Parts: sequence; C-alpha cells; structure tokens
Amino acid sequence: MKGTRLDIETANALPSDSAHRAASEQATLLLPRWIATAVPGQPLLSDHGLLMQGGLIRELAPQKRLRAAHPEALIVELADHLLIPGLINLHCHAAMALFRGVGDELPLKAWLESRIWPLERALVSEAFVYDGSLLAAIEMLQAGITTVNDMYFFPEQGIEAMRDAGMRVSAGLVVIDFPSAYAADAEDYLRKGLAIRDRWREDPAVSFCLAPHAPYTVSDAALEQLAMLSAELGLPVHMHVHETALEIEESVQRYQLRPLQRIARLGLLGPDLIAVHAVHLIAAEIEMLAASGANIAHCPHSNLKLASGFAPIAALLRSGVNVGLGTDGAASNNRLDLLAEAATAARLAKAVSGDASAFSASQVLHALTLGAATALGLQDRIGSIEPGKEADLIAVDLLEARSLPCFDPLSHLIYVSGRDQVSDVWVAAQPVVRMRQPVSQAFLAHAERLRGRLPLWQNRVNETLSQLSSESLV
Amino acid sequence: MKGTRLDIETANALPSDSAHRAASEQATLLLPRWIATAVPGQPLLSDHGLLMQGGLIRELAPQKRLRAAHPEALIVELADHLLIPGLINLHCHAAMALFRGVGDELPLKAWLESRIWPLERALVSEAFVYDGSLLAAIEMLQAGITTVNDMYFFPEQGIEAMRDAGMRVSAGLVVIDFPSAYAADAEDYLRKGLAIRDRWREDPAVSFCLAPHAPYTVSDAALEQLAMLSAELGLPVHMHVHETALEIEESVQRYQLRPLQRIARLGLLGPDLIAVHAVHLIAAEIEMLAASGANIAHCPHSNLKLASGFAPIAALLRSGVNVGLGTDGAASNNRLDLLAEAATAARLAKAVSGDASAFSASQVLHALTLGAATALGLQDRIGSIEPGKEADLIAVDLLEARSLPCFDPLSHLIYVSGRDQVSDVWVAAQPVVRMRQPVSQAFLAHAERLRGRLPLWQNRVNETLSQLSSESLV
Repeated sequence: MKGTRLDIETANALPSDSAHRAASEQATLLLPRWIATAVPGQPLLSDHGLLMQGGLIRELAPQKRLRAAHPEALIVELADHLLIPGLINLHCHAAMALFRGVGDELPLKAWLESRIWPLERALVSEAFVYDGSLLAAIEMLQAGITTVNDMYFFPEQGIEAMRDAGMRVSAGLVVIDFPSAYAADAEDYLRKGLAIRDRWREDPAVSFCLAPHAPYTVSDAALEQLAMLSAELGLPVHMHVHETALEIEESVQRYQLRPLQRIARLGLLGPDLIAVHAVHLIAAEIEMLAASGANIAHCPHSNLKLASGFAPIAALLRSGVNVGLGTDGAASNNRLDLLAEAATAARLAKAVSGDASAFSASQVLHALTLGAATALGLQDRIGSIEPGKEADLIAVDLLEARSLPCFDPLSHLIYVSGRDQVSDVWVAAQPVVRMRQPVSQAFLAHAERLRGRLPLWQNRVNETLSQLSSESLV
Repeated sequence: MKGTRLDIETANALPSDSAHRAASEQATLLLPRWIATAVPGQPLLSDHGLLMQGGLIRELAPQKRLRAAHPEALIVELADHLLIPGLINLHCHAAMALFRGVGDELPLKAWLESRIWPLERALVSEAFVYDGSLLAAIEMLQAGITTVNDMYFFPEQGIEAMRDAGMRVSAGLVVIDFPSAYAADAEDYLRKGLAIRDRWREDPAVSFCLAPHAPYTVSDAALEQLAMLSAELGLPVHMHVHETALEIEESVQRYQLRPLQRIARLGLLGPDLIAVHAVHLIAAEIEMLAASGANIAHCPHSNLKLASGFAPIAALLRSGVNVGLGTDGAASNNRLDLLAEAATAARLAKAVSGDASAFSASQVLHALTLGAATALGLQDRIGSIEPGKEADLIAVDLLEARSLPCFDPLSHLIYVSGRDQVSDVWVAAQPVVRMRQPVSQAFLAHAERLRGRLPLWQNRVNETLSQLSSESLV
C-alpha cells in the first residue's frame, strides 16, 4: 500500500490557494505508472510523464526525457497510479444532494409528485441551491469528477458553488412550464438563464446548455424557441428524453407523437442534443439518434432504482451514437459516484444486450471523458490527455493491497476500482485532492462552512416530509 | 468527518493478538449511533449499546444502562456509525482472486473454456489456493465480510487461509466430474472433502457444504450420493444452478430435463440446497424452489458481466424463497465487495420487476446477513445481533462528509455507503479492522508475507496466458 510521494518543495507549495495558483504557473511534472489518454486508438502509456503549466497540459513524453528537459519542475510521483482525464458527469441535479435518498423505493412519477416536487416547492431557494450544489461538488471532486453538466433551478447559485469548490461546470439554463421560486413561466426561465450566461461568459471554467426539463413539461412553443436559440448561440440542449414508458404513452395520447418524434419536429434532434436517460427506444429511434448525431447521457443507477428500465447502450454504440455517463441527482441514485456508475454501466450493457463484449472498458473510459466532453461541445478543451488541453486530471491508485493483482490497468479502473482509490485530482492544473486528502484551501474553507449549515437543511427537509405525510392523512 | 474514538485503555490493548484474545475475554462495550439487528420486524435501534465477551454478544440495551452496569468494560465509541451483523458472502471462489479480471468481456462458456480452465490446469495447487484465498480474505474482511461460503479445489488450504486471516468460513467440499491437481474423479473429490471435514470439525469458525460444481459437470450417480450424504450429515448443498440459458438447453438435449427438474429427481431440491445464480427460471421453477424451501445465492455483478442474464429476485422473494448475496470469484466480478453487490442487487431487482419497491433496503440487509446464515444452517449462531450469538459485527461510518445528509440509516447503508466506510470489523468479538485499519497481528503478518509472493503468481498467470494465446495461433 505504497502511497504517493510528494516532494518537499511541492508540499511546501500547497498551504494556500495563492500558492496553488503560483504552482500552476510553475511547471509540474506528473510521473504516473500508466497514462490512459482517452484519445481514440491510443494505447495505454507506461513510463510516460505529463508536464502541466499555466492550467494546460504542455507535454506528454517518456519520463526520462521530461525529467532531463525540466529540472525546474515540481515532481509528483505516482508510482502505483493510472493517470486519466478528469471524469465528466454528463447529467446531474447537483443541489438535490440535500434530498439524498428521499422517496426511496418509489417509481419516477410518484417520487416526483409525492416527494420531490412538494419538497422543491417548500425549500428551493438561492441558498438551498448554493449549499446543495456545494455539497455535491465536495462529493464529486473527491470521486474524480472535474466537470458536471448540471440542470436545476437557480443555476447561477449552482455555478457559484461549483466555482467556489474549484470544479468546472456546464450549467443548464433550465426551462420548465411551471412556476417556481426561481421563475414564473418558460419565458421568465429563459430570460433569467440568458442573463446568467451573460454574467459568467468570462469564466473559462463555466459553459452552458439550454436545459428544457423534458418533453412532457415544456410546451411546443418554448421548445421551438429553444431550438432556434441553440442554433443561434451554438448551445447544447440538455433534456430528459424517454426516461419511462409512461411518458411515451402520455405523449402519444396528447400529441399523437412519441416524444422523440415531437422534439425532432420542433427542431431539437441533432448533434447539439444531449438526450438524458433514453431508456425506451424502438429500433427506428436508435437510428434517428445516430443519423442526427445526437448524444446520450446514460444514468444506469437512477434508471434501475426508479424502475424506469434498461437503456439499450450496446445497440446505441453499435449505431454510432455518442454516449456519456451521468449520476443524475443524489435523490435517485443515491451517490454521486461516476466510477461506480461506470462499473454498473459496463456490466449492465452486457446482460441487456446478451453480449459479454458490449461496452468494453475502453468504451466506458471514452464515455466518462471524451464522449461526454464532445456532447458538451468541449472536446477541444477537455476530455483527453493531449498537449494544449486544460489539465483536468485524476490519478487512481490501482495497486492498493485489497485490489491486487492488476493484470490490465484499464479493466482494473472500470471493474475493480472504487472512488476511494481516486488519490489525486487537478482542475486546470490546480490541485484539489492530493494523496486522498482535499488540499485546496477554498475547497476546505467552503466545506467547513457548509458543515455548519447542513443540519439546518436536514431539519427543514424532515419537517417538510412530516408535513406532507400528515397532509396525506387528512 | 469525526472519526471513531478509541479509549486509551483499548488502544493499549490492541498491539498483539494475545492481547486481542485477552480483550475478547474481557467485556467490550460498543456504543454506536444506530444498530440494525437484522432480526425480522425489529426496528432500527438508537442510543443502544452492545456488550460482547468471550466471543459472544452478551447484551443489547440502552447505552446508559450498559455503561452503568459494566464500568469495567472497554468502551468503543462509534458516534457516527451503524452497527450491523458481519456480512455473509454466500457464494465465492476465493482463490480465484489471483485471476482477478482475467478473461474480461467473454461470455461464461468461452471464459471458462479458453481462460479459466486452462489457467486452473496450469496453476492450481495447495500453495495457489492458500495464497489466493488469503488475498480474498484480506479484501473481504476490510469490506465487512466476516463469513464466506467458498467453493474451490483444495478446500483445506482455503480454510487455512481464511482462519489465518481471522475469518469465518463455510467450506465447500467440491465435487466435479473432471480430474484436477486436487482429485482424480467424483469419488476422490468426495473422499478428500469428507476427510477435511473430519480434520476441522473442532474449529467452531469452520463449517461445511457439499459442493457439486453444477448439474452440467456432475453425473447423476454422484449427485444422488451427495443427496444422501446431505441428509445423513445435515450438510447444505452449494451448487451453481441455471446460470445460463445454454446449460438449460444442453440439459434438455442430454437428459430431457431442465437442470432443476433433474436435481429435484435426484433428491437435491430442498431446504439444504443453496442454488447459486438461479438466473433463468420459469414460473413453475420459482414455485418449486419456494415449496421446497431451497435458498438462492444471488450474484448480480457476475451475472451481468458474463452476460448470463437477470435473476428474478422480486418474484423469488414474493414466493417466499430465501435469498442471500454472493460476489462469485474475482475473475468474473472483479471485486469482492458485498456492499457494492447489495447496492446493485437492490437497484437491479427494481428494474427487472418493474417495481420500484422491490428488494427494499431492509430485505437486502436480511439477504446480506440472516438470510445467508439461514442458507448455511448457521442462523442460530450468526446473521443477526442477538444476545447469545457470536459477535460477528461491523460498524459502517454513515456520516462521513461526502455522503451527507443521512435521512434513513438503512437506506444510506444500501444505496449510499461504500466498503471504504466500513470502519470496524469483529469476528467472534476479535477486532480485525479498527478505524479503517487492519489491527489483527495475524492478519497483518499474513498480508505482509503474501505481498512478497504475489508478483510470482502474477508472473505465472501472465506466462500461462501468453502460452495460451501463442497456442491458439498455431
């Protein structure tokens, strides 16, 4: 159980965030045992190092050569580790971490109508979204997730929390046809969302999606407007699609169209679409998705737990559809752990398709990284280890005693490793976690303050739940 | 992230195993935040403590009362923890930990025939089984598994390894119709197995199952003999049953019977049967299993990864069949993590049955503990927290920062917690893990010696695999 070794100079450079920033201007040389770049077709690298500086990956080369060429660099030895791109969570409702596990063992419709929506009406506010998102960021960063594609009310507070924690965020400009504390109607949601985008456009770690909640909660008129805006502004569209059989039946009754047909007619089916869940698909729909270049955010834990069903991932991949992975919110998961999601996705696709070779470890790594980055339009900046890209990186300790022996590092990453083996996390070359401990002062300070506020939120959730159950007795 | 607090006296009592044994004669008082006893119908306990002494659970009562009544007891504070019975892994091939992940992404038949069986022919020996089982025990104990129901060649070396590590074992007296380094034919397997049982009958932490590998690898004559022996000796029968569709087809062709019909005719279907996998079952077979009182060992990760299919767990439970959970071997999992298996089982049963309330957290806890103990015939000694039972106990830290908030401890255990949150493990009141660190000197010494031998095994596996692939090129 050898740990990572942090040279004295590096350790001394870590005590404050300004030191971190200075460190990111200085060159840092990572020396892992293996590197999986996630560049398609590129084999696993051994004896290679990675030089990062100014937030970017600068060089990827044999360790000897890098050591000789950069004697000034800080050295980070990762003797037992696989270095991979930071994981990208392609679908989350981060703030729902404050509802972790609420309404367990209910199907989606009852879960939403009897628990989640009443709780949201009672509790969701700017403060709720900030604290819930911060809680989620703390969990996700320590699990190696460096970017989250989020969808929730008050997206600006979500962005603030993610940035305070040191995480990259693709913020969903949510649109839904019912009023909330955040906005009154579809137009109001959209106007507020676009204003947030204007305010945050200077932060390179923040990007945006249009985020109509689902075909069954957004009108034709609003969806058409979003399709036009997506084309005009070059924004991806992040939307729940075909999660349950019921929503498809209801759409057929109401519109004489299946939801995917309907959103295709409204102009939303294309390479900008991130169709979340995509559980119930007929063969023609898989072909439609493939032909249009649409992307899927696959969330197996949520789909299983809510009894929604099994997404046909092997068939989607065979047709060439780009697949990423998401945790969904902690209320239906109940854990924001993308490595666990990946292990389930890898195993489940095999049984669903009847093909033990389906969704191989290397395909799963792609889904966790470059596939998700592509869905977000960020493939030129993150998602793979290539010089010039942002240094969003994680090291996973593959050789801890209880998971030996390791015959194939990529297989070991997907089928053996847990989030507790994620030892080091960098976002844009800033260290957030080192040797399994959070080291960013901002992260630590925000986490500490949040700890004081959590019991208050927990009490308010419990009070609201007991009110709900006493009302249902009337 | 408050840790557990170990009083000074206890810490001083930990440095050696003789001190451990002494400690087990002395009373120890565990003071967890919650206790889930796994006794059917008993609610979660708060503010309760547990007194253990001489290997047994002595008292379960309010903390105040126990503190007052036992001022001499060593105190173990578990302020953030749920205390539950030690987990029971109802199906494992422990020694296959040395083949972890070998033959990934192959279906069962190809995986066995092209990888596992040739590897076993080349490598399996007494030393292999001892080292592989020890490796598995190290992984399992740290994941909160205190008892394993094992099936492999050289079961005596498996027993030795488990006992050296400090784990309880139900050893399978394996019978299979092909020769191995261990035994020549069915009769030889059985004779050797019964001799092992004679040698180990004095160790209360060792029990036995008859373990015919599967209907497709054991003859009618041998199965009939095993049925008689099971009745005569009161031994459970641990056997793979209906894992794949293919084995059922082949049985119908060969015997004009489905395997379950065949073993029923041979006298093996009854309360002593532990049917492992039970993936492919028609309705009448679920009824047969229920009516006979047979038990199921459900291994979802292995079933998914080998594309074997989905066991109908919700239907089995509805019919009253007793269900336990198993990891299977690390070659097809690839991780001996029963809490992860439980989370998958809980989620998967919901999607398979289309019922989000299927396999609830409390049903899953039963499967992990008392259900499995019942299948092994050990329900009077382990599997629940009751005075008089053996003190096989684990504490799970539910309140670590990255998994907050916790609304329902049982839900949190199943849907949120990972094996890294298992902080403390006792087997028959002996501490094996304390505050996430192994503390048993025997465990540590054996683990250290094993570390030196592991690279040799890894090389031998790699050499054999490259020989196999060069042969397949000829």
